Amino acid sequence: MRQAGRSLPEYRRVRADVPMLEACARPDMITEITMQPVRRYGVDAAIFFSDIVVPLKAIGIDLDIKPGVGPVVAEPIRDADGIKRLREIEPDDIPFIREAVGQLTGELGNTPLIGFAGAPFTLASYLIEGGPSKNHEHTKALMYGEPELWDEIMRRLASITVGFLRTQIEAGASAVQLFDSWVGALSAEDYRASVMPYSSWIFNQLSEYGIPRIHFGVGTGELLGMLGEAGADVVGADWRVPVDQAAERLGPGKAVQGNLDPATVFAPWEVVAERTRDILARGRSAEGHIFNLGHGVLPNTDPDQLQRLTEFVHEQSAT
Amino acid sequence: MRQAGRSLPEYRRVRADVPMLEACARPDMITEITMQPVRRYGVDAAIFFSDIVVPLKAIGIDLDIKPGVGPVVAEPIRDADGIKRLREIEPDDIPFIREAVGQLTGELGNTPLIGFAGAPFTLASYLIEGGPSKNHEHTKALMYGEPELWDEIMRRLASITVGFLRTQIEAGASAVQLFDSWVGALSAEDYRASVMPYSSWIFNQLSEYGIPRIHFGVGTGELLGMLGEAGADVVGADWRVPVDQAAERLGPGKAVQGNLDPATVFAPWEVVAERTRDILARGRSAEGHIFNLGHGVLPNTDPDQLQRLTEFVHEQSAT
Repeated sequence: MRQAGRSLPEYRRVRADVPMLEACARPDMITEITMQPVRRYGVDAAIFFSDIVVPLKAIGIDLDIKPGVGPVVAEPIRDADGIKRLREIEPDDIPFIREAVGQLTGELGNTPLIGFAGAPFTLASYLIEGGPSKNHEHTKALMYGEPELWDEIMRRLASITVGFLRTQIEAGASAVQLFDSWVGALSAEDYRASVMPYSSWIFNQLSEYGIPRIHFGVGTGELLGMLGEAGADVVGADWRVPVDQAAERLGPGKAVQGNLDPATVFAPWEVVAERTRDILARGRSAEGHIFNLGHGVLPNTDPDQLQRLTEFVHEQSAT
Repeated sequence: MRQAGRSLPEYRRVRADVPMLEACARPDMITEITMQPVRRYGVDAAIFFSDIVVPLKAIGIDLDIKPGVGPVVAEPIRDADGIKRLREIEPDDIPFIREAVGQLTGELGNTPLIGFAGAPFTLASYLIEGGPSKNHEHTKALMYGEPELWDEIMRRLASITVGFLRTQIEAGASAVQLFDSWVGALSAEDYRASVMPYSSWIFNQLSEYGIPRIHFGVGTGELLGMLGEAGADVVGADWRVPVDQAAERLGPGKAVQGNLDPATVFAPWEVVAERTRDILARGRSAEGHIFNLGHGVLPNTDPDQLQRLTEFVHEQSAT
């Protein structure tokens, strides 16, 4: 359950005086925040606490995460000179990642740790727009109008992403999840031509480790098949596509992750239970199904409801 | 081209000192702003300048449109008492609408005027959340947890919407477009059970006028068939679903509207032309196709590019 932390009082306590990017660069904080939902809920895996812009910050891009806004990039990257700032990431740029993963695998014992990274399209959008964007107009204009620059920025971001994930895997992460949060803004044609090759390259580079590779985006109904085709073993679907239909679109050899609408958790428990039962039933027709929310946990979520949900899924899956 | 105005210098000039909701309540402003893109581009139809919250304001709901934020409702509606505030709309609540439509049909001559209204789900979301929402959690919690309240709020909003559109039609609008901007946040199952009956009722109420009824939402790939089934004659598709596939999902008897990505207009002209040609070609397999952007015009759009696009579509359609 990604971002399960931010709805927890213990999370708000540790983060009270610590800005997001500082929290993501301190091994003690990363470890504590990653562990919080595992301790409280007993979920089946931990997801590494980080932010998709952490590797960009680590190679020297001037950016910050503004509360209530998101990542803001001081100088948006829109030309060849800007792209040169996207240098390779080296293990020494992110010693705190290695250290945190090491601490975590110790604390987690048999509970797997899922490594975390943003995918090139979503990273490119932040860098090109200069911050969060509803319409991605500068990103798309560059993608359509300057294909060589686009190729260069996407190659560099793919390489940075692989470096960021390698560090996590080599320090002990036993699966990875690649978040392409905004890829649902693209048509299938654009995804195939201008994004899939780079995500594909990432999954390919990681195949030597033989660990599960999870891919996730929001509003990806039209793209699901291709998200799997790109090389992920598991594809997350938001709540817009029922799990059995998602499995069909993915085709053989793929598992589905999802997909209770995080807003559903605000409804009375009976509704949550009924919807969860339905999702689990649909999941049985998939080759593999990881129950999860269809998107990150919303900040005002009642932790007791998530606790009950976790127990319910465990009970139902045991029968 | 919805919101074509806001990218125009002449729009910014007339709106300079006039807040949005005041502009929407002054017949001279409505007429001027509705006419601006028609005058400049020579598009085939005008879309009535308004905002989806105008009928709510007109029945006394305390709300405002904050620049850069959107509609903000002073007291969100979340219980039976709140819902009582949603009274029927009477023609006397919106004399400025009647007057503006009258002026416009005079000025427009043979160019059709498309009436404008928001659909119940999107209106309900603003009222229940109290403003724009990414996750619609209060709305969904009420929809799932309190079906009787949900039914009451949706019935009342549907009735208000019909009143708002009747006024426009009876004053001379020759088509209507119902905007359910946020309906793409729902699963197909939720749409069918909790939203479609009310949109359906609206289209049904308007059938006596025998004018084209257009329906539009964003991110509606999973819902397209049902948006048509609800009773629209024309369904707008955003750029995520190619027009020929949208026509297939809609089935017989429906026309498609769309669907150039508004961000594409930021790319070099050759790219815009190529994409437009593709959309027009795909549109030939539909029973009817209205070329349009796949969503509203973005504020920083270059008016010259839209001018060229309009001319290009006219040329291509003439051949």
